[in-house]
Amino acid sequence: MRLYDNAVSGNAYKVRLLLAMRSIDYERIQLSVVDRSDREEVLGGKNPALRIPVLELDDGTTLAESNAILCYLAEGTPYMPTDPLARARVLQWMFFEQYDHEPNIAVARYLLHYAEDPDRELIAAKQAGGEKALGAMERHLSEHDFLVGDTCTVADIALYGYTHVADEAGLSLDDYPGVARWIERVAAQPGHVTIDH
Amino acid sequence: MRLYDNAVSGNAYKVRLLLAMRSIDYERIQLSVVDRSDREEVLGGKNPALRIPVLELDDGTTLAESNAILCYLAEGTPYMPTDPLARARVLQWMFFEQYDHEPNIAVARYLLHYAEDPDRELIAAKQAGGEKALGAMERHLSEHDFLVGDTCTVADIALYGYTHVADEAGLSLDDYPGVARWIERVAAQPGHVTIDH
Repeated sequence: MRLYDNAVSGNAYKVRLLLAMRSIDYERIQLSVVDRSDREEVLGGKNPALRIPVLELDDGTTLAESNAILCYLAEGTPYMPTDPLARARVLQWMFFEQYDHEPNIAVARYLLHYAEDPDRELIAAKQAGGEKALGAMERHLSEHDFLVGDTCTVADIALYGYTHVADEAGLSLDDYPGVARWIERVAAQPGHVTIDH
Repeated sequence: MRLYDNAVSGNAYKVRLLLAMRSIDYERIQLSVVDRSDREEVLGGKNPALRIPVLELDDGTTLAESNAILCYLAEGTPYMPTDPLARARVLQWMFFEQYDHEPNIAVARYLLHYAEDPDRELIAAKQAGGEKALGAMERHLSEHDFLVGDTCTVADIALYGYTHVADEAGLSLDDYPGVARWIERVAAQPGHVTIDH
């Protein structure tokens, strides 16, 4: 398998994390998330949305969207439940991640660390949205060890991607003790690798 | 089943559309998308993100996120493929919808029709994002009848929700002939109902 990747993207990291947990070997092709001028050339035909990560299977088929890739790689493993309602609940958290969480926390982190002359008002708005998303996670994780059921699923891997670097978005987990304990729980999973791996 | 619903929300409409296509009876509880003051009271405990749609099953269990609800209702029907890669491709389009499509087209539509004194610069930015999302769909639909395989799946239902009201977001489908033909194809599916149904 080949992963169209970026070393600092939390979305790409999610995929690397599950590949590591599953001990799957793969090749990494690095793309910039700052200079996107080669996207059409490299990703055209591989992902209509021209974004990384993209997973290329051994037969050349490609699959895009980090959370869709996670679901594909998790099928038939303990990272994806078999019960229909539990599977839907995993997807519920993954759609929440791409709608309420990533567009706030990942964007605030990007603006703070990689953008030239970033819009301070926009950063503040993204941080406020990030706090709301962390609040939604805390409501669940203050009472549960994992997002769905009693074990680590791709819902946890998807949310871990940017939550564990929330400090780089200027957000503290001090007010979210359930989330902070869950971060340690996911980091302790067999095969876990760090984002700079 | 009971649907926490809103008559103008494309996200709620997606769920009503699949329920109609599957001839499933359900009760509708209407919530406002403008006055959200009762969200904690009505949806607290049902959806950590406090958003509609939420589906309540007969045993009281609740499921949130429109696309997760669609996947749950589609399982075991022709609207969800059985092949692992096709299933992942359905999810790819559904995550694209919530990340690139809905936050632009739905928000431009909301600002134009329901917001008091909307930010014109923001509307223009959301419309530009909407054009990009429609362009990604056109790249695929100019050569294919449906988003995944040869039949209508929940990927089509998810994208149809806001694409078919793109004109209300100030976007024309004239430049996207493949998308326009696909709209007619989805509207011709057995059991199809309109958004004001």
